[in-house]
Amino acid sequence: MNRAPLVARKMLQYPFARAYSSGVAAAVASAATSTVDGPHTRPVVKTAIPGPRSKALLEEMGKSLSTSQVAFFTDYEQSCGNYMVDADGNVLLDLLTQIGSLPLGYNHPAVMAAVSSSSALTPLVTRPSLAMFPPSSWPELVQSTLLPLAPRGLSEVTLMMCGTCANENAFKAAFINYMDVKREKPLTPDSEEYSSTMLNQPPGSPKLSILSFMGGFHGRALGTLSCTHSKPIHKLDIPAFDWPVALFPRLQYPLDQFVRENEMEEKRCLAEVEEKMEKAAKAGEPVAAIIIEPIQAEGGDNHASPNFFKGVQSIAKKHGASFIVDEVQTGGGATGITWAHESWGLTEPPDVVTFAKKMIVAGYYTTLDKRPKEGYRIFNTWMGDPIRLVMLKAVAAEIRSKDLLSQFRESGDVLLSGLRELEVQELNCTQELFFGKEKVSLIERSATPFWYTGPGARVHSAPLTATPPIRETPSFQRFAAKGLIWEGVGRWE
Amino acid sequence: MNRAPLVARKMLQYPFARAYSSGVAAAVASAATSTVDGPHTRPVVKTAIPGPRSKALLEEMGKSLSTSQVAFFTDYEQSCGNYMVDADGNVLLDLLTQIGSLPLGYNHPAVMAAVSSSSALTPLVTRPSLAMFPPSSWPELVQSTLLPLAPRGLSEVTLMMCGTCANENAFKAAFINYMDVKREKPLTPDSEEYSSTMLNQPPGSPKLSILSFMGGFHGRALGTLSCTHSKPIHKLDIPAFDWPVALFPRLQYPLDQFVRENEMEEKRCLAEVEEKMEKAAKAGEPVAAIIIEPIQAEGGDNHASPNFFKGVQSIAKKHGASFIVDEVQTGGGATGITWAHESWGLTEPPDVVTFAKKMIVAGYYTTLDKRPKEGYRIFNTWMGDPIRLVMLKAVAAEIRSKDLLSQFRESGDVLLSGLRELEVQELNCTQELFFGKEKVSLIERSATPFWYTGPGARVHSAPLTATPPIRETPSFQRFAAKGLIWEGVGRWE
Repeated sequence: MNRAPLVARKMLQYPFARAYSSGVAAAVASAATSTVDGPHTRPVVKTAIPGPRSKALLEEMGKSLSTSQVAFFTDYEQSCGNYMVDADGNVLLDLLTQIGSLPLGYNHPAVMAAVSSSSALTPLVTRPSLAMFPPSSWPELVQSTLLPLAPRGLSEVTLMMCGTCANENAFKAAFINYMDVKREKPLTPDSEEYSSTMLNQPPGSPKLSILSFMGGFHGRALGTLSCTHSKPIHKLDIPAFDWPVALFPRLQYPLDQFVRENEMEEKRCLAEVEEKMEKAAKAGEPVAAIIIEPIQAEGGDNHASPNFFKGVQSIAKKHGASFIVDEVQTGGGATGITWAHESWGLTEPPDVVTFAKKMIVAGYYTTLDKRPKEGYRIFNTWMGDPIRLVMLKAVAAEIRSKDLLSQFRESGDVLLSGLRELEVQELNCTQELFFGKEKVSLIERSATPFWYTGPGARVHSAPLTATPPIRETPSFQRFAAKGLIWEGVGRWE
Repeated sequence: MNRAPLVARKMLQYPFARAYSSGVAAAVASAATSTVDGPHTRPVVKTAIPGPRSKALLEEMGKSLSTSQVAFFTDYEQSCGNYMVDADGNVLLDLLTQIGSLPLGYNHPAVMAAVSSSSALTPLVTRPSLAMFPPSSWPELVQSTLLPLAPRGLSEVTLMMCGTCANENAFKAAFINYMDVKREKPLTPDSEEYSSTMLNQPPGSPKLSILSFMGGFHGRALGTLSCTHSKPIHKLDIPAFDWPVALFPRLQYPLDQFVRENEMEEKRCLAEVEEKMEKAAKAGEPVAAIIIEPIQAEGGDNHASPNFFKGVQSIAKKHGASFIVDEVQTGGGATGITWAHESWGLTEPPDVVTFAKKMIVAGYYTTLDKRPKEGYRIFNTWMGDPIRLVMLKAVAAEIRSKDLLSQFRESGDVLLSGLRELEVQELNCTQELFFGKEKVSLIERSATPFWYTGPGARVHSAPLTATPPIRETPSFQRFAAKGLIWEGVGRWE
């Protein structure tokens, strides 16, 4: 995860897009270094994509697994750094890196060295129940890896297996906390809570809700899916909790021309949050937590100002609800700082920050006072995976020693100024690559230089029957032919 | 995962329990072989457990992670086969093996060899988005590993990261299927379904339910937790879907003395399932799936007859609901056959069979016609983890080549006849180890020899404030001092 290679990729794709800004090229070239030396230096496309071998494999895979989402098959052994090699030997520039989950790209030597050491073998073959029988090395590994990466003010960490489970359990922690504060007298063995919860009824299973934002994506299990509002296809036909959804600001760009309008838009959205909180409480299903992404990634790369996020935090606090920041997509350095929310200048930390993807391990940070006092409330068989923490340790050391975050920020500046130049020239070529001029301004919007980290298609209601497999969409075909994989464009036509 | 070592462990623990059956000992000794040669042949307890080093590590870990569930710290490098070595050098017989998730025990040479090969390095460091960019080797790996293990009649497989997510997604597949069948006309881009689901409202987010059984355990995300009814502590303070819960049969033992009573009990329970299905449909929240475990493990080791399960399947079919068998605890050979439900003699397979734990990978099997036609409905970033499938392949080959399932069954017979002898002698020592005579009869009940695979404490409502960390419970102390780790006893006093 290095902005310089990203910029290099941008540079490389321009000739294919029929337009080129020499000013950008010069700036980009100066930043075009890579942390991974590998055999690939540019895309090489030899066959149609998917090629004949991918097509044969697709048929084979279809016998036992769904193939609706398959773009092509990959030769991961031959892939290196930012370059992905497909089953037909095509070399592709990868701007997606497995939905933003490979922070240093393919087969990074530092990560390979970390898992190849003899001390990594046991954690891999003996995946322990970390909450019951942690390895002797666990406290040190957690403290030397996860604590230096912790968001300011948060030092309690709970590990899970994926982003969805991180958020589901952050919800549970918030519910437990909310009831802890609210409960007037301690439970006794004959409390109605115990019998009622076994039948999914209050008071043991209370009516509580999580407030989320239109356009947000927080996962796909039944709790998190009720807070996901990016695309209907994710939710259709699945029952949901009837939890409140507030509008996320829709800012107008360029920002400097719409200062007043955008302030009003954010105020309007904050008022709606306040209103929904009150309405939920009155309806007997109070909001125990608000969950929000620093940048709505899956839902269309929507941004808001630090003031908006501060306002949301303040409303949450006023109502005794937890303020959960979902950094599954933005966390781990993607915005040029470790956690995107740290650019907001909050005076106190969020109650919970969740992570996964390029953090390699998944889970959430919180404060010690939010830790459930009783065991087995936030619990599962594994509670994380030590080998993934070994990998994260190597990744974090690499980012630190090579000062990659500075490189991200510098490359971001280069990219941004190059995009501005293209914007001035009103080149149509940027339309597809950056979702047009709006996107250029969106990039300008973010408090820190923006780095694209995940799916970014616009929210719209594509009809269920008209969802072709990604490999059959025209834009996928168009970009793949140029040796470029950009999932956000290819997914929805 | 070998019954012989289990029996050997039983034999070893008897002297500590102050009673011993020489008949059992002789039978047990003959079966006491192990597939792992290691340095440990019996428990050696040198310190209190947790010992001084565990206690120091506990304090260290408490600075950043919850320690409520920690029993002690483990030296996994020194652990081998069925023997776990703790941080203080105590050698313990492990009857729990990480909540039943290590099928061949600690540091098994076959698994170590599989992940040490150079071809395993890339799948580990480059965890792909398997549904979008599968490795070229993926179809072959899935077909050579998961298909030979597939339950009869099921050849479609979907991979997830853990048992909870396997069940959550099995629910989603069932909901999608239910609506697919029910939907009268195809959706169009302006269908109300698309806009309503974005706000968690019907018709896009329909009112549908999953029927589950009292005592069942299916996971801890918000959908599966609504189907979990084993212990209140798992559910307390977390909102739940108001989904129907039916009673699981409570059989009387010895079975041959209660034939008529037990038939009536199962009929009564089936009638209740039927009644709840009708009631849910009338209330406008029809049941899209019934989920059930072949043996209620977490909920108290409750069994039912094949006729009962056949009856449940038949009711599900009649109402157009999927029949989901949750084999997260029972699957992977634990009962002497690969899947416990195959002992029921069903004339057609379950609609969905879910798995995790000792299958190492998690997910569910179903039939091709249950595969959602559209992409991105059952989807997440990783959709499984290839390195775990490499491990399962080695485990399955080991079970096959050593014929471990036969050994499980033989050892089961030995264990069962030994238990019967102890039962005849009415030795109090079995009370704690096997939950008394009732448990002996429970073991007799199962269609195939029973092998204890996970938590097995009785369902009861322990008060929230009276849950000590496992390491502080008297029974944990008692058993640990004898070099035996048996989680089901230690957890709840």
